[in-house]
Amino acid sequence: MYNMDSLYEAVSARGHVCVGLDTALDYIPPALRRASSDAEAILAFNRGIIDATADIAACYKVQIAYYEVLGRAGLESYAKTLSYIRRKQSLVIADIKRGDIADTALQYARAHFEGDFEADFVTLSPYLGMDSLEPWLTYAEHKGKGAFVLMKTSNKGMKDFQYLELNGGATRLYHAVGDKLSALAATRLGSYGYGAFGAVVGAEQKSEKEREETAAIRERYNNLFFLIPGYGAQGGAAKDAALLLRDGNGGVVNASRSILKAWTEKTGTEAPVDAGLNNEFAAEAAREAAITMRDAIREAFS
Amino acid sequence: MYNMDSLYEAVSARGHVCVGLDTALDYIPPALRRASSDAEAILAFNRGIIDATADIAACYKVQIAYYEVLGRAGLESYAKTLSYIRRKQSLVIADIKRGDIADTALQYARAHFEGDFEADFVTLSPYLGMDSLEPWLTYAEHKGKGAFVLMKTSNKGMKDFQYLELNGGATRLYHAVGDKLSALAATRLGSYGYGAFGAVVGAEQKSEKEREETAAIRERYNNLFFLIPGYGAQGGAAKDAALLLRDGNGGVVNASRSILKAWTEKTGTEAPVDAGLNNEFAAEAAREAAITMRDAIREAFS
Repeated sequence: MYNMDSLYEAVSARGHVCVGLDTALDYIPPALRRASSDAEAILAFNRGIIDATADIAACYKVQIAYYEVLGRAGLESYAKTLSYIRRKQSLVIADIKRGDIADTALQYARAHFEGDFEADFVTLSPYLGMDSLEPWLTYAEHKGKGAFVLMKTSNKGMKDFQYLELNGGATRLYHAVGDKLSALAATRLGSYGYGAFGAVVGAEQKSEKEREETAAIRERYNNLFFLIPGYGAQGGAAKDAALLLRDGNGGVVNASRSILKAWTEKTGTEAPVDAGLNNEFAAEAAREAAITMRDAIREAFS
Repeated sequence: MYNMDSLYEAVSARGHVCVGLDTALDYIPPALRRASSDAEAILAFNRGIIDATADIAACYKVQIAYYEVLGRAGLESYAKTLSYIRRKQSLVIADIKRGDIADTALQYARAHFEGDFEADFVTLSPYLGMDSLEPWLTYAEHKGKGAFVLMKTSNKGMKDFQYLELNGGATRLYHAVGDKLSALAATRLGSYGYGAFGAVVGAEQKSEKEREETAAIRERYNNLFFLIPGYGAQGGAAKDAALLLRDGNGGVVNASRSILKAWTEKTGTEAPVDAGLNNEFAAEAAREAAITMRDAIREAFS
């Protein structure tokens, strides 16, 4: 079974929230940080968040940069975070944005679909071309693995390359990426009409023109499941994200900071300040934030 | 001082060879593999290669995928390989092809320009746009670090996106990337006329048209230092690479397999087969291959 089918079912059962474990050190309650090394504090914090959200999150996305910055100890916490999520029968996206060719891509695929760092999905960058996806695709066939390829993001630099008009002016670079991904998906669809490889499409729309472009993306690529970053902290909200869903499914919406740091919003009111805050408090706040987000998205498309 | 200036000087002194430590396990002599764990064998092999080539190589490029595939132990060998090169006062390019935005890019920049994994240069992917380079650029200002951004590669998939014609038809996507990089370089040139961030440009040309395109790249982007992969194993040769040099400098040419596996070419003639081969034998063969390559490139542009 494709992991993309499992993700579809998780969305049907639990909603669209992808909890982003981009665990920066300053997201962690002071008491927990004082009690252990940085890498251990991140892992303990993540476990608390995972325990508190596993029944309401469709999946988790772990951004490897926040672990790599702590070197080898950080990558140990990365590996343990992934395996903790998978042991709970939840799905995990390794946000690694790899893009390389031939033998090198094969090594990366082995690194992230087997062994210490095994994930259910990865994120990939398309710049090198479709042959850079091939080694990852063999894992879709044999182990059901999936991927989300960068297509259109919502950062300022999106305009630099992704948004460039191609010859003739009718399409942009991100359409070229989407078209290739959609053709690839069509070669073998999962049980719910989506290919094993979906796309990363940003949620934030600032103008009516952007909303139209986003709606057109959903329409044009109806066999691509979307990973939709940018909820909350990056400015995207439920209505923005809902434009990228299809029949109430077809995408997961990632939020990191707004969930992980939810506890800081409550400081000074309910927070056990004397104890320097604690992890249960943070986990409970994360759960509440994830439920609010889940319900807001459901309301936005219904 | 910019590392790019140091690299220019290294090329002047020692030639254009960048030794690629894409150390696949089957590149390592059997005797060495039997004697230790996979990760330790890679590190020992790399040290032998580095010792044997430090006086003739402009720099080293370490492809992290070959270490990541061995998990945490592999990344320990990666870190130790980088620090071994740097302790020898040689320059090292971390071939990580990262590309991410905002806070995440900053974490990556910290991860690879400080701490366990500190390198002198990194490789980056441009798909997300120029703002994805900013956190790395601050390290150019403060620590002299450099980067090579993917521009035009020589794999088959290059045609999928990099080679797409932009609106009007006069330029292609890779020109848009090169133009932005060249404009960035112009804002602060090093001592030899190159910006801190150069570009990755593939060496292999199969037709006269491709040779013309490659020569045009060198002409158009005269302030970009090039990292030129694909020598040997990927089909590019000295004449191909020479098209991307400028006044006998302006680029380093990477070879991995043809140097690391040079020892296998000699098996059965000079190889101590009874001992299952050894690391000194492999290192000496690598040195000879690197010298041959260095001289071929010098001859090609002179």
